[in-house]
Amino acid sequence: MLKSAKQVSGLEGLNDWTTKVCAGDRRAIGRAISTIENGEPVGNALLKLLFAKAGGAEVIGVTGSPGVGKSTLVEKLAAEYRRAGPQVGIIAVDPSSPFSGGAVLGDRVRMQSLATDQGVYIRSMATRGHLGGLAPAAHDVVTILEAAGCDVVLIETVGVGQDEVDVARLADTTLLLLVPGMGDDVQTFKAGVMEIADVFVINKADRPGADRVEQELSAMLSITPQPDGWLPPIVKTVATTGLGIRSVQEALGEFRRFGEQEGVTQRRRMVKWRARLLSLLRQRIFEKVVTEGLGEKTIDEYVQEVVERRRDPYSLVEEMIQRAGVRC
Amino acid sequence: MLKSAKQVSGLEGLNDWTTKVCAGDRRAIGRAISTIENGEPVGNALLKLLFAKAGGAEVIGVTGSPGVGKSTLVEKLAAEYRRAGPQVGIIAVDPSSPFSGGAVLGDRVRMQSLATDQGVYIRSMATRGHLGGLAPAAHDVVTILEAAGCDVVLIETVGVGQDEVDVARLADTTLLLLVPGMGDDVQTFKAGVMEIADVFVINKADRPGADRVEQELSAMLSITPQPDGWLPPIVKTVATTGLGIRSVQEALGEFRRFGEQEGVTQRRRMVKWRARLLSLLRQRIFEKVVTEGLGEKTIDEYVQEVVERRRDPYSLVEEMIQRAGVRC
Repeated sequence: MLKSAKQVSGLEGLNDWTTKVCAGDRRAIGRAISTIENGEPVGNALLKLLFAKAGGAEVIGVTGSPGVGKSTLVEKLAAEYRRAGPQVGIIAVDPSSPFSGGAVLGDRVRMQSLATDQGVYIRSMATRGHLGGLAPAAHDVVTILEAAGCDVVLIETVGVGQDEVDVARLADTTLLLLVPGMGDDVQTFKAGVMEIADVFVINKADRPGADRVEQELSAMLSITPQPDGWLPPIVKTVATTGLGIRSVQEALGEFRRFGEQEGVTQRRRMVKWRARLLSLLRQRIFEKVVTEGLGEKTIDEYVQEVVERRRDPYSLVEEMIQRAGVRC
Repeated sequence: MLKSAKQVSGLEGLNDWTTKVCAGDRRAIGRAISTIENGEPVGNALLKLLFAKAGGAEVIGVTGSPGVGKSTLVEKLAAEYRRAGPQVGIIAVDPSSPFSGGAVLGDRVRMQSLATDQGVYIRSMATRGHLGGLAPAAHDVVTILEAAGCDVVLIETVGVGQDEVDVARLADTTLLLLVPGMGDDVQTFKAGVMEIADVFVINKADRPGADRVEQELSAMLSITPQPDGWLPPIVKTVATTGLGIRSVQEALGEFRRFGEQEGVTQRRRMVKWRARLLSLLRQRIFEKVVTEGLGEKTIDEYVQEVVERRRDPYSLVEEMIQRAGVRC
């Protein structure tokens, strides 16, 4: 089949773009991520090409309450991985809740020690305004960073909303940070976190109370059955000085080996790709119906009919689906 | 067209159920809400019938941080509305985050003063595990409560996650609770809340610092342009003793009249029904494709192919959509 000049140049452009991303070209990587974040149609074609080159990285999620030192730990951990050679990608999820708005710029500034390292790629993503949640976009960003040659991808999230938890589930390994002196933190986290944390880190361990937090955590872990048979280690760190960072890296490596041996990693990857596949399906089919199932009217004209109670939304949606031509 | 006995009895059953809901039968209402919460297919048919009877209530959202006294205020406000006759529905969204798990039972216990009042219907909804978020389900619960004759529906949410904010957007009027002594609360809320709050309530106003919170709030409101031209009033209450509850009710009434006059209410209803229509469309079409677009394989077989990198998810989804018969 003949292709128009524009189509060919589009395809060639895509291939060229893919090649550049895979070669680690920072501008090409940045453009690819923005394309995904903005939901541009070309992102889909690009991801098809990049997917074949992706899949090699160890994805590590780092979560915890605000102020426990996640950014500093991520920065030091990235530097530690870099010492041995691997390329590192960092995805920092900004806690821009609909109530507070705006990103915590301080965190980005603190990671500046990595800014000149060409083996590290740092990207912030805001939790706000992602249609269908942040996790799908973050998932695709991991694919891009993997294709770009990252051996380790660190995802930093604030452990609060569903969005952040979904992002944490993208990781092969999840690390939870605590600090002494936050009172009943261990009590507050309770069962939910015991499930998602593979490694616990007590940061700012030079502060009084670190031992007590460790004891409480140990006690709680000893009575909580671990779903995969893994007992999460507890590592104490002072991220600002780098104390304990190596031990964190070792604990992560230990879990990686355990996960690969026991099939935990494989199971988690099934869960995360299942979620991605379904969200992708949901989004694409929706776009199709909205483009093709509305007939002569705009979506706002339909909404108007509903608000004025001339039509009920439930029958209306059935009509739209039929009009889009889905076989029943 | 002839109908089978089962279909007729199904339809008759539905009509009977609808009649009972509209008559305020508490068991029928409870069953209807559970049906929606569980996503049972019959819920769709029921909502089509109930929609025609719904739409009459004033929907008031009550939000604020944990511990500011939302439940107590809602309880007292409900009692105040009841004094004048209206039927009141209360939807309490439980802050069962994926991290903490479980509902705050204390809140439900505190509302027990309303438990014997047949003119009040209280329902808790957990934020956890709702496919596509809590807001769509809460939206349908409002429809049920309206059909059941509620003139006022109070929705209590904790102002944290996206889920709760989406629920707050179901309201015609949103009330935000603050308390003195929470330090920089006014600073923390910032711009985001100025947009969603129509009425501010400083609860526990008998505590020191209430005047300062009021001043800070006034100052902030005076420099923040209000999108609809409404300057949110600030009301001081001591919900436990009932002090100020009448003033809250008056402020709500004032906003209602303003909103109706200025078209604010109409605009908000457009926004909320638009969201509901789109989420309904997204969900229904998705169900259809998952039932019909998978061909011979299960979804897990596809996921396996993706995890093993034999297929990329982006092309796979396109195939599924085509197989489901959506015209391209």
